[in-house]
Amino acid sequence: MSQLFNAYAAVAADAPLQKITYDPGELHPEEVQIRISYCGLCHSDISMLENEWGWSTYPLVPGHEVVGTVEALGSEAKGLTLGQTVGVGWTARSCLSCHECLSGRHHLCTQAQFTIVGRNGGFADRIRVQWTWARPLPSGIDPVVAGPLFCGGVTVFAPLELHGIPPTARVGVIGIGGLGHMALQFANKWGCEVHAFTTSDSKEQEARSFGAHQVHNTKQDPGLKSLAGSLDLIISTINVPQDIPALLGTLAAKGVLHVVGGVVEPMQVPAFGLILGEKSVSGSPTGSPTALDRMLTFSARHGVAPTIERFPMSRVNDALDRLKSGKARYRIVLENDFA
Amino acid sequence: MSQLFNAYAAVAADAPLQKITYDPGELHPEEVQIRISYCGLCHSDISMLENEWGWSTYPLVPGHEVVGTVEALGSEAKGLTLGQTVGVGWTARSCLSCHECLSGRHHLCTQAQFTIVGRNGGFADRIRVQWTWARPLPSGIDPVVAGPLFCGGVTVFAPLELHGIPPTARVGVIGIGGLGHMALQFANKWGCEVHAFTTSDSKEQEARSFGAHQVHNTKQDPGLKSLAGSLDLIISTINVPQDIPALLGTLAAKGVLHVVGGVVEPMQVPAFGLILGEKSVSGSPTGSPTALDRMLTFSARHGVAPTIERFPMSRVNDALDRLKSGKARYRIVLENDFA
Repeated sequence: MSQLFNAYAAVAADAPLQKITYDPGELHPEEVQIRISYCGLCHSDISMLENEWGWSTYPLVPGHEVVGTVEALGSEAKGLTLGQTVGVGWTARSCLSCHECLSGRHHLCTQAQFTIVGRNGGFADRIRVQWTWARPLPSGIDPVVAGPLFCGGVTVFAPLELHGIPPTARVGVIGIGGLGHMALQFANKWGCEVHAFTTSDSKEQEARSFGAHQVHNTKQDPGLKSLAGSLDLIISTINVPQDIPALLGTLAAKGVLHVVGGVVEPMQVPAFGLILGEKSVSGSPTGSPTALDRMLTFSARHGVAPTIERFPMSRVNDALDRLKSGKARYRIVLENDFA
Repeated sequence: MSQLFNAYAAVAADAPLQKITYDPGELHPEEVQIRISYCGLCHSDISMLENEWGWSTYPLVPGHEVVGTVEALGSEAKGLTLGQTVGVGWTARSCLSCHECLSGRHHLCTQAQFTIVGRNGGFADRIRVQWTWARPLPSGIDPVVAGPLFCGGVTVFAPLELHGIPPTARVGVIGIGGLGHMALQFANKWGCEVHAFTTSDSKEQEARSFGAHQVHNTKQDPGLKSLAGSLDLIISTINVPQDIPALLGTLAAKGVLHVVGGVVEPMQVPAFGLILGEKSVSGSPTGSPTALDRMLTFSARHGVAPTIERFPMSRVNDALDRLKSGKARYRIVLENDFA
């Protein structure tokens, strides 16, 4: 197969995306080739386009919330069949042989390749990834909305598993956006008492519709006194500095403040805020292949799905502007309209 | 019983200790009265004497690493007998009825009373505490050295249990002092690969004698590059600011930086340093009654004991000066010499 792929790429930091074609070369034995149907738009696509983390290389094809169908299988690609509907998230390859991979934590492989870091992502008509990272969609998941589950979704689902959160727990979610609106759904369907933290009164009703039992406006009550000592887990999805002592104060004994939002400034964590109640501050990236599978099955069973706005891929620059404006409710999905 | 207790107290912050007597009043039904044989000297006695945490009231009788014999039992005191040798640590009372107490985590009871906070401690001939917090010494523990196990000991033992550390793990200990030299012993006897972090070359041989397999001088290698990605748990026993990003860098995936040293300045924790490897920063105070019991049994089985310097209680001010000088190797124990 020697066929050019179509994609949208930025040629430099902050440049608008433009159509390109590229030659993917020979299909690697471990890879599968996916014909893309949909691709979600994640805030980390913008971080990469702006080289916020210093990892970006150009031309850069963003997109790491891919849904499509398998159209070619490498000779060593396992567990997938041609024509199968699959999704791809933040990770595109892992070494399979290190301690983490062999422990089932392929997402923590230090040799892992991320879908849009030094690779071409999913704002394209096709993509190739290692078979490990193309996970089949279970029945009951709508392919149109499935893309965001593969990055944003698993990112907020994983902490519930990581920390062994029981359905009797009280869970807070900070930031009711692309990730947060899925976190509220997961925590609610997990059986927990769910608290949403937002700075926007306008989101209160929607936060409740996603599963929040209580909504707290952190502008009106920055000290969060009413929640003192009550939460078992807080999932923070935002990437701006926060009042860590106040958040630790809302945690019950043995509670965890878990960050998935990549705030650049160091968090100011008071030692006594951890010591006295045996509390912790932790973080996680996305999730392992089996976490993705469990998250998808759980989402299908409980109807967890992102609320999306649809754009044709040809309007990708408009979609990026919409995401940057902060007005997207709550996740944007691009539809492949390459001819 | 209406008998005055003898003690050493500071009448104001930074005042030298002086002999006092006080009337303990009626014995509370839940309390036991202990005739003190020995009392360890902990850095938090100095923090309290200097009102570093703002909790101190005067006159203040320090001392919360007590060993002695039960000489009176309240009508509701359970599980103890007259004449039994017991120890007391940081906690002297808990409510017994809250969620934490009923969960066996009495040390996290928000109503807990600490032995030297608003109560008279163990630089004395007698002390009273709730029966819950007077734990019998198993055979095989020398009463002379047992006191420091009850505060410093359990403080560094508890993280091994809290985080479910297996004997196959690699454990780092920061600070080879009163707590650290016990942490090295516990981690070694736990079966782990043990790394000591110190700024003092002079402590290398002794750190090895306590159980360190490797000793790292953080002044010579502040970035700790040689340990990158290798430790499963770090127990930090010191109370000065540290290079948190460098320490997180030494952790393997899912590793934990656990602080028991009450540094006052906020820790500067980078979100990405947690997220990428699913790492965490946590803390804990001392330990529960059952953690104390398990720690004592483990110490007896493996010969874990602090290395101590002995002072008669009448030389308590000399002992405090010695501790403040940083020269004590490694824990000071006062011997009751009240007439």
